Amino acid sequence: MAKIDLIKDLVPIAQNTMADIVEKELRDYLKKKSFKPGDALPSELELAEALGVSRNVVREALSRLRMLGMVETKKRRGMILSRPDILGSFERVLDPLIIDDSTLQDIFELRLTLEMGLADILYLRKTKKDLKELEAIAKSQEPKGKGQAFRISNEVAFHGKIYQMTGNDTLTRFQNMLLPIFGYVISLEKVPKIGTVSHIDLVNILKDGTKEEFRAGMLEHLKPHFDRLK
Amino acid sequence: MAKIDLIKDLVPIAQNTMADIVEKELRDYLKKKSFKPGDALPSELELAEALGVSRNVVREALSRLRMLGMVETKKRRGMILSRPDILGSFERVLDPLIIDDSTLQDIFELRLTLEMGLADILYLRKTKKDLKELEAIAKSQEPKGKGQAFRISNEVAFHGKIYQMTGNDTLTRFQNMLLPIFGYVISLEKVPKIGTVSHIDLVNILKDGTKEEFRAGMLEHLKPHFDRLK
Repeated sequence: MAKIDLIKDLVPIAQNTMADIVEKELRDYLKKKSFKPGDALPSELELAEALGVSRNVVREALSRLRMLGMVETKKRRGMILSRPDILGSFERVLDPLIIDDSTLQDIFELRLTLEMGLADILYLRKTKKDLKELEAIAKSQEPKGKGQAFRISNEVAFHGKIYQMTGNDTLTRFQNMLLPIFGYVISLEKVPKIGTVSHIDLVNILKDGTKEEFRAGMLEHLKPHFDRLK
Repeated sequence: MAKIDLIKDLVPIAQNTMADIVEKELRDYLKKKSFKPGDALPSELELAEALGVSRNVVREALSRLRMLGMVETKKRRGMILSRPDILGSFERVLDPLIIDDSTLQDIFELRLTLEMGLADILYLRKTKKDLKELEAIAKSQEPKGKGQAFRISNEVAFHGKIYQMTGNDTLTRFQNMLLPIFGYVISLEKVPKIGTVSHIDLVNILKDGTKEEFRAGMLEHLKPHFDRLK
């Protein structure tokens, strides 16, 4: 009886751990040897022999690195190191149903932080063409008493355009990933509140105002969300 | 000859694709069935049979989900859905040597955006105790003519504390991940420039000033970095 329990305790952990260890070994190895994107990697078999583990475990670990975009398989050249998609895996796990409440709250605040912080870069890069496009988006969205879903898709279009105007692709993509979580947190309350500064107001500030005025306007626009934090 | 080439062309892609497909299938399945953290999942064998693929492929896909923290193996209960670590995989790929220059630049700007945007949340949450600790860090760092490495570890301690004062763990961890990339970008230039507002100055503003003053001070502190963007 005692023996059976011992075996029960041992089995499930082992498999888990091997892939974890080998994955970390491989990442450390790539780093230590200063492999660069495009460099060829040893084969699965060579790696298994060098690490003294089964090919299955190496395959599992390599599959993880492949998902992260760190490794890819090329015709004839075998495996090479590649440039990872730094937000790819982040995107995979951003599901409000599996994220705990405290992290959802953190992400909510992270989006507010980005929104309040982008004025400086936005003012460096905004163009008249972009402002026209932003204005068109804002005008097509004037209050129509539509529901929550409409409001969220509005937010995505308008704020997404502002991020795009910063010229920063990573920031734009990151924000687009955060918005559904943001929308989810908002949807938890029954009566959504709306700030006194509208999208159109923000466009007008961007046209003629300073970045300090824009920041103050954005704060007012986001006020119902900031009020929630108190 | 033609036949051999065809085989060469076919082999490497296939394996790749199966794990990718099954990984996505599983993620979609978990979402569609509204699985929640703690729910038990079908076994590897059951999944393989349902999907009509080999157990090896399912194992690979599950290993990826395990790395993302979406799945874990529990004693006696088998596989269950778990709460993912949303920044875990992001951390794995943040290596300046494998990230392309344009993404490095994006991350550099992302950190500046966060730094300029955190004043509102910081002013909601800062405490006297935190301010004392921040002051102690700033004082221990007064200019000593130390090198670049010292300067970067200073930045990590001081700015890391500011993020911690926002009470947002995700933001704090995210910023800590971005800083080495930030440091790397700075290290590419020969003579690091320093803003006219020091860490001590920022502490003094945080003690007695408004959040607008803090934001202006932070902008001045970061001015050499913003100048780089022009």
